Amino acid sequence: MSQHIDKRNDRIHQGQVTQKLKFYQEEHRRLTVLFNITRNISTELKLDKLLYILMDEVKKALKADRCTVFLLDKEKNELWSKVAHGENEIKFDSHLGIAGYVATTGDILNIPDAYADQRFNREIDKKTGYKTKNMLTFPMRNKRGEIIGVFQVLNKFEDAFTKEDEQLLDAISTISATQIENAQLYEEQKKTFDSFIETLASTIDARDPLTAGHSQRIAQYADCIAQKMNISINRRNILRYAALLHDYGKIAIRDAVLTKRGRLTVEEYNHIKEHPAYTQSILEKINFSGDYKSIPIIAGAHHEKIDGTGYPRGLIGEDIPIEARILAVADVFDALTSRRHYRNRMELEKVIEILENNSGSHFDTNCVKAFKKIKLNDLLLILEDDSSEFIDSEDLNFFSKFNIMDLLDRQNGKAKTDENRFIAVTFNKYYNKTYANITY
Amino acid sequence: MSQHIDKRNDRIHQGQVTQKLKFYQEEHRRLTVLFNITRNISTELKLDKLLYILMDEVKKALKADRCTVFLLDKEKNELWSKVAHGENEIKFDSHLGIAGYVATTGDILNIPDAYADQRFNREIDKKTGYKTKNMLTFPMRNKRGEIIGVFQVLNKFEDAFTKEDEQLLDAISTISATQIENAQLYEEQKKTFDSFIETLASTIDARDPLTAGHSQRIAQYADCIAQKMNISINRRNILRYAALLHDYGKIAIRDAVLTKRGRLTVEEYNHIKEHPAYTQSILEKINFSGDYKSIPIIAGAHHEKIDGTGYPRGLIGEDIPIEARILAVADVFDALTSRRHYRNRMELEKVIEILENNSGSHFDTNCVKAFKKIKLNDLLLILEDDSSEFIDSEDLNFFSKFNIMDLLDRQNGKAKTDENRFIAVTFNKYYNKTYANITY
Repeated sequence: MSQHIDKRNDRIHQGQVTQKLKFYQEEHRRLTVLFNITRNISTELKLDKLLYILMDEVKKALKADRCTVFLLDKEKNELWSKVAHGENEIKFDSHLGIAGYVATTGDILNIPDAYADQRFNREIDKKTGYKTKNMLTFPMRNKRGEIIGVFQVLNKFEDAFTKEDEQLLDAISTISATQIENAQLYEEQKKTFDSFIETLASTIDARDPLTAGHSQRIAQYADCIAQKMNISINRRNILRYAALLHDYGKIAIRDAVLTKRGRLTVEEYNHIKEHPAYTQSILEKINFSGDYKSIPIIAGAHHEKIDGTGYPRGLIGEDIPIEARILAVADVFDALTSRRHYRNRMELEKVIEILENNSGSHFDTNCVKAFKKIKLNDLLLILEDDSSEFIDSEDLNFFSKFNIMDLLDRQNGKAKTDENRFIAVTFNKYYNKTYANITY
Repeated sequence: MSQHIDKRNDRIHQGQVTQKLKFYQEEHRRLTVLFNITRNISTELKLDKLLYILMDEVKKALKADRCTVFLLDKEKNELWSKVAHGENEIKFDSHLGIAGYVATTGDILNIPDAYADQRFNREIDKKTGYKTKNMLTFPMRNKRGEIIGVFQVLNKFEDAFTKEDEQLLDAISTISATQIENAQLYEEQKKTFDSFIETLASTIDARDPLTAGHSQRIAQYADCIAQKMNISINRRNILRYAALLHDYGKIAIRDAVLTKRGRLTVEEYNHIKEHPAYTQSILEKINFSGDYKSIPIIAGAHHEKIDGTGYPRGLIGEDIPIEARILAVADVFDALTSRRHYRNRMELEKVIEILENNSGSHFDTNCVKAFKKIKLNDLLLILEDDSSEFIDSEDLNFFSKFNIMDLLDRQNGKAKTDENRFIAVTFNKYYNKTYANITY
């Protein structure tokens, strides 16, 4: 009898242990998923990459075929996603469709059969050729409880989405919201900083009507040259800031001198020549961090020449940072190719001849070489301040097959071909702004 | 016999289940701790707060009395911590002490008896009165494997730190490193942006020698007024940027007009009056996000008057943003109290009289009232551009007990007391820069 009771107690105990074990095993799976997702997303402050990681992780965690994160743009009342349903960026009214319903009401929608549901928009499937079977759509809320987006998970591999899936997605959604808001904050801060610098640059350019748009263009030319020289994206970024700010020191130049149209006196010319040193000393007051610390030096050296005859410091050769040597080419090219109200642009072949003739004395030979590799479509878009609406798209496509060298007479000793001549004529129609008269 | 085997198999099975249960229970505790820490720290981009949360969580997770996170400053070769051993910010050579040893070698140091260990620096305990018993010091590495700091956990409640503690701290350390680097990145970006705006503001001020330091001071006065008006820290931040940038439009004003010393012609005066509109239109090109979008409007309205006679828009009363009404008071106060090479500052009582007389016509009455509540020590530090080394610390302490109103003759109808007179005399020694002659 007592043996019988013992055995029964054993069984009960054993049953409890097994039940506990089951509980802990489930919890273990859940926590492992959550922990891994949290760890993987917390490393990423770039919104694009963060969303990719997130969609991928959720797909795996819920054993489903697809996952999309839609973010809510409150100003525009739109839901948008970088990659949804295999398409590129999509945007739609934040009240439309199932995602819109969830974003508006905050309800969770677990739909086992999409085509049986009125709210489902079949058009998207029609467009993409995808067949939606079941779907789980879940609101994403930030710490203040505001809906900032929607998770949409499609086609669970086995059967439909369960209550457990909902709970898991609930936890993931809470964690994600914070990280997404951090990434947005970070990107917005960066965007503000960027547009700030661009605005300043254009303000400085605007002090002299002849230099309008100069800083933006030099930044673009410099970036093209840097690409041809295989300079890393990180250093190109530094170069871009330095280019935008290279003339900031002109703020310290008297405008009677800066905008004087006639010949400058020696004193006036010396005053103007102070601007790169001012640029450097002003920028040095800025608390740049990491690699950005080199921005003041680069920006301040754009008038140095590799033979040591430049200013303000008379640096020689590789003592001039490579980024500043690139700026030198871009700066002179833009000055010579800018339109003046009293004259047209200098002839393009002549400009390139000047760059070539001063290669090895004023300019770094490699920078000039790289410059000549710039594709003609890129060149034209910069020259025209990106007003591509005036440029025929077929011409642009044609130009994309050639670079600056192809415009020239002397192609590595070869005679100019008819094709070269044709390219040059077509390009010069735009360059000399005669395209207004061209009829297509 | 078969019953015996059954029973034995049961026991073995039961043992396995219990063992598994134990494993999952331990894993559950570990993962819960990690998940919670990860979730709690991932919400924080402010480095200070992040470090506090982290130290608190680690202390709890490892059941210890104290935890300090030391961060490695590679440029200065220092380890630093906001709060270590109950003291405020400490810094020391990154090779010193146990933390320095771990930061240099990357070894984990688990010391069960600190006083028995040669490397332990008893001086810190002596200074703080804390008694260190055991300690676990662990390197923190980023994704690239570089050591970015050190965790130091002190005095485990029961016995000493175990291998399991080391493993747990290992995982925590990996997660923390990423989040700390993100926070550092974010703060550096913000710092760069801040110093950028400050530099620009001072560059603009520098175009006219009479206005050197003006933008910095107006930002400080405005912040003092805003504090007295209980304006939130968030809006004060916006006000600060608007104050620093309020005169940026002067970049579009010809310097012959801007720096003209004699009487201005009507045309010249009208040209100068264009600067707030320029400020607004330049700032509007910047991609400010969220609440910062109001910066251009605020900065552009600093010459509006509440009776509608200001410029550029002639706004009336509350149509002028409160921040701009604050700027108006700060701007005029700074202009009147600035030193000129040809004259001393305007007498302080006279300046305040002007503010009061124009309260309700030019200025918002509440802003003037708030202004008069500014403590005299704060006022003096701004007036003297923070060069507190010239100010006697006892005087500064004395001034901290009074505000601007206490300098005045008419205290809500009350007669000026001897104390008021004494305050005014003491304050005016600095204000009129006669303090160089004072002997203490």
